[in-house]
Amino acid sequence: MKAQHVLALSGGVGGAKLAAGLAAVLPPEDLTIVVNTGDDFEHLGLTICPDIDSVTYALAGLNDTQRGWGVKDETWQAMGMLKALGEADWFNLGDRDMAMHIARSWRLRAGESLSEVTARLTRELGIVHAIVPMSDTPVRTQVETAEGWLDFQRYFVAEQCRPVATGIRFAGIPGAAPSPAFTEALAREDLCAIVVCPSNPYLSVDPILAVDSVRATLEGRRVPLIAVSPLVGGTALKGPLAKLLGELGQPVSNAAIADHYGDLLDHLVIDNADAADAEGLRGAGLSVTITGTVMCDADDRERLARVALSAARIETG
Amino acid sequence: MKAQHVLALSGGVGGAKLAAGLAAVLPPEDLTIVVNTGDDFEHLGLTICPDIDSVTYALAGLNDTQRGWGVKDETWQAMGMLKALGEADWFNLGDRDMAMHIARSWRLRAGESLSEVTARLTRELGIVHAIVPMSDTPVRTQVETAEGWLDFQRYFVAEQCRPVATGIRFAGIPGAAPSPAFTEALAREDLCAIVVCPSNPYLSVDPILAVDSVRATLEGRRVPLIAVSPLVGGTALKGPLAKLLGELGQPVSNAAIADHYGDLLDHLVIDNADAADAEGLRGAGLSVTITGTVMCDADDRERLARVALSAARIETG
Repeated sequence: MKAQHVLALSGGVGGAKLAAGLAAVLPPEDLTIVVNTGDDFEHLGLTICPDIDSVTYALAGLNDTQRGWGVKDETWQAMGMLKALGEADWFNLGDRDMAMHIARSWRLRAGESLSEVTARLTRELGIVHAIVPMSDTPVRTQVETAEGWLDFQRYFVAEQCRPVATGIRFAGIPGAAPSPAFTEALAREDLCAIVVCPSNPYLSVDPILAVDSVRATLEGRRVPLIAVSPLVGGTALKGPLAKLLGELGQPVSNAAIADHYGDLLDHLVIDNADAADAEGLRGAGLSVTITGTVMCDADDRERLARVALSAARIETG
Repeated sequence: MKAQHVLALSGGVGGAKLAAGLAAVLPPEDLTIVVNTGDDFEHLGLTICPDIDSVTYALAGLNDTQRGWGVKDETWQAMGMLKALGEADWFNLGDRDMAMHIARSWRLRAGESLSEVTARLTRELGIVHAIVPMSDTPVRTQVETAEGWLDFQRYFVAEQCRPVATGIRFAGIPGAAPSPAFTEALAREDLCAIVVCPSNPYLSVDPILAVDSVRATLEGRRVPLIAVSPLVGGTALKGPLAKLLGELGQPVSNAAIADHYGDLLDHLVIDNADAADAEGLRGAGLSVTITGTVMCDADDRERLARVALSAARIETG
């Protein structure tokens, strides 16, 4: 089977790992990776796109696998000086990571779209696959707390998710159109699968689905939508978001994820540790694959990518 | 003698050394250091003020004395990444230096004046003396070449002064008022001396003199103006500017410097190596001090500061 295009939807760290796996097993012309920009924010005059950068660093092989975010072999000289200059230090920026934000910010100010800047910077780093923002219009995830609506990074990093959350919203939506490459991928004749990477459904995938017209387009899809669950052993691999979801009355379970995606979801890939969930999911009419979903290295990433693609009957070399 | 205020006019590296010497021998309330901003430029979306930073790093003890510019113990990780991202690398920015530009740029964009930003950042670095931009309105030194008018850093750093120069101008003048603290220092009742630091008269001091009303105010001064010559042994300590001045028909000599400043100058401090110049200068009616002007360490800087101040009969502790 040829002329098969895969559209992947990704958030940050966990999603970035599977995106890198998909890029390892699919040629560039067969993959479009659309990335959440709801976590983006302006800080110290720089436009920071944490999820785009996580995917970029993962595909460029520059990601720090020990720390789990940012660039490997990173240094922190500029951050130390910013602190000495009395500037905010709640969001830690490495020196090489800072360069990414500087390059992106000045290109955006010079009039390039986020799609253009992202294409340019990823190409310069030797990435041959398309990493695409969900929208070129700023969308900002915000969390409602007793202090009011907090920008996501303020809530997530500065406040370390301490305030009780009572709501999530995506400022800028409606009004944010899908980026040109996202629109194009959705409309491709040869689109054969949509893969939702193991990112948080409420915080990383929902913003993508909330982009103008995207949910309606996906509801009318003619190809399978496969999600890889971000849960392992009934909880998120990375921490405090479970607290947020609990406060929002959103259970952290594969059944809740399936319920959340509803008719959009055709197939859920769950971890071996959650094998017991399969029966209920299948009983609810869902197709399920049980496999190891923890990605510690390139082999793990590629294997999980192949498993996800095989659920859509896509052959990989 | 008390209630004595000194106004120092400074360019970058050489001037910054004497500025640091003046700060070492005068209490903060007795010194205002006004710095050339004609070398400032916008690069990668950042506002870079090389002379303000040279003076700042010198007073904070952060300057790299070996390399002669920038921050000591500097690293270059962000610059390497910017290069990998395909961005311009002709102007080398260290990681800690980059932090200065990031902090300044975002504060300027947030609406602070260059005076306010400079006061904030120098204070945060523990500097108790006033480092003041010559103007809060952008002034940009440009050099005329066969390719047209080049921004100074483009000419000086990117082109390494290779094109033949046929003119110098200061874009933004007229129209750039002195900064509030510069205006205030010029008007002080207790002003007792103006010290022109050993910076290039044509490129570092002339922009300051060209700021609206400054030359006229200095012509009406009631206090001595003492310049420390930037020449040692008949040439500039730091390089290729002699070429520029030759092309512009400006001789590089103490007589030419005295002639250039004209009636503004009351006293010239020249280097021992140029002692032979003294007779001619004195014959032209100028007061002259001959001393060692090469500043290799803090002792040199303080000693030269005392020599310059004693020419104005200012006692230092």
